[in-house]
Amino acid sequence: MSVLVVGSIALDTVKTPLEEHADLLGGSASYAAVGASFFSPVNLVGIVGNDFPGEHLEFLRARKIDLTGLQQVEGKTFRWSGEYMWDLNTRETRSVELNVFEHFTPTLPGAYTGAQIVLLANIAPKLQSHVLDQMNRPLFTIADTMDLWINIAREDLEALIKRVDMLILNDGEARQFTGETSLIKAGHKIRAMGPRFVAIKKGEHGCLLFGEGEFFSCAAYPLEDIHDPTGAGDTFAGGLAGHLAAGLANGGGGIDFARLRQAVVYGSVLASYNVEAFSLERLRSIKTHDIDARYQAFRALSQFEAIG
Amino acid sequence: MSVLVVGSIALDTVKTPLEEHADLLGGSASYAAVGASFFSPVNLVGIVGNDFPGEHLEFLRARKIDLTGLQQVEGKTFRWSGEYMWDLNTRETRSVELNVFEHFTPTLPGAYTGAQIVLLANIAPKLQSHVLDQMNRPLFTIADTMDLWINIAREDLEALIKRVDMLILNDGEARQFTGETSLIKAGHKIRAMGPRFVAIKKGEHGCLLFGEGEFFSCAAYPLEDIHDPTGAGDTFAGGLAGHLAAGLANGGGGIDFARLRQAVVYGSVLASYNVEAFSLERLRSIKTHDIDARYQAFRALSQFEAIG
Repeated sequence: MSVLVVGSIALDTVKTPLEEHADLLGGSASYAAVGASFFSPVNLVGIVGNDFPGEHLEFLRARKIDLTGLQQVEGKTFRWSGEYMWDLNTRETRSVELNVFEHFTPTLPGAYTGAQIVLLANIAPKLQSHVLDQMNRPLFTIADTMDLWINIAREDLEALIKRVDMLILNDGEARQFTGETSLIKAGHKIRAMGPRFVAIKKGEHGCLLFGEGEFFSCAAYPLEDIHDPTGAGDTFAGGLAGHLAAGLANGGGGIDFARLRQAVVYGSVLASYNVEAFSLERLRSIKTHDIDARYQAFRALSQFEAIG
Repeated sequence: MSVLVVGSIALDTVKTPLEEHADLLGGSASYAAVGASFFSPVNLVGIVGNDFPGEHLEFLRARKIDLTGLQQVEGKTFRWSGEYMWDLNTRETRSVELNVFEHFTPTLPGAYTGAQIVLLANIAPKLQSHVLDQMNRPLFTIADTMDLWINIAREDLEALIKRVDMLILNDGEARQFTGETSLIKAGHKIRAMGPRFVAIKKGEHGCLLFGEGEFFSCAAYPLEDIHDPTGAGDTFAGGLAGHLAAGLANGGGGIDFARLRQAVVYGSVLASYNVEAFSLERLRSIKTHDIDARYQAFRALSQFEAIG
């Protein structure tokens, strides 16, 4: 059973204090789909222009990502350019060219509509809802979002999250969305708005997962050198969704909080690798045993003995 | 075997967006000693004026804290006043009256000099070193510090940390002390300056513990309502030191990284209770079973299953 990933596909230009690279493979769906592909086959829905390099398509196909749902149309691919400040935590968008993405309508091939796990990577909430309209009773739906939609499409976002099982957003966005300074209050408040589960990403401080009467705090992997944070959140969401799909494929029954904890850790593992290089470069070289080794490292760094 | 705690004892006036209270029991040694007292007998070294309320002395004695080393002298007790901003994360000092604390020299009663666990709570590093000068080969020494000493007494602090086993400081201070934006790099860099172990407190994001080739990330307890963050770090250090002393008293041999992980969690438990009320009020009401229950809750919120 494939996981369905819908989102943006972009060509990025990224500048950090040390390096600058142009025309990199980027976009929320690229990161999310590749993140998920380490665990599960992936069906991808997105849009690119006829300038989109064939090598990127080859890379995605090589990662077991089905591109039947990828629209390739006349025009230029979505382009984004951003610059990270000295601490790599603050980012400024330098330019956005929507190009073919401006009129994107995510249309699902018939074979995609029965997906059990759906990841609505970060795009306009109206488009995310449009994907759900086409689905045939998915088991578990996840939506990622960003500050932009909280600012300019709040009603659409509120409508969307009533329909999804899990919302993913970062700490600043959770505070912005709820008006709460406490992330704990923010998490509970967002759950009350619809989704059964909420994941709040905190960058270098890890991630918080909220469920009904349940709570999980996932540490961050202690990286000394981060080269490019772009796509970390998308990769996290992809790894999480892919791991859930793999669990279902292995006949593991439904999705409970214990499984979500594991999925959050696997998502964090993928994200920790992703930031070690620009674009998706690091994800080109890692193997399953690397992922499992870092999962074990996550356990080691957060475990402590019981009382006794 | 008692843990030795040396630091400041103050009467605090604290204002938060919702409340203001005056003449509260405060100071690094008060919080640290009471935090430690839940695990171990405590010997306290500090100074107060003759205005210091007898009820505070009674409270400390009732918590198995030996006050032989407490100097009570003519004059007024150290007073501090601070105000927390709307998010309870930012604090402004409104006034400081050093009073009798200005000429404090920590002098150890003979019976204190053989302590195995020494907690140098936050005071000037020169005074912390002066305590070590009087000690007879302690097994494990811990120093807490603050931004003020990094700014005005950096050389003293650098001299001190060559002599202690563990330094505790918060995230902003670790960055300030090392010039590193990465807390991981900062932790390693401080270890290279002397202490075998470094604990970096991150407030609502928990705590990082660095050892030689070892790393532990402790989550924060998910509190929805924080009433007064004053003394959280001191209580953390006290709980940590007290737990280490209790382990030695129970014949548990030396102090290894596994024991330090547990101690960090116990310190975090104590700190999480402490911020639930002003001053030390919350620590007056909790019992050992409350502490153990929250320790178990810390385990529950940070555990996840192994692969398989």
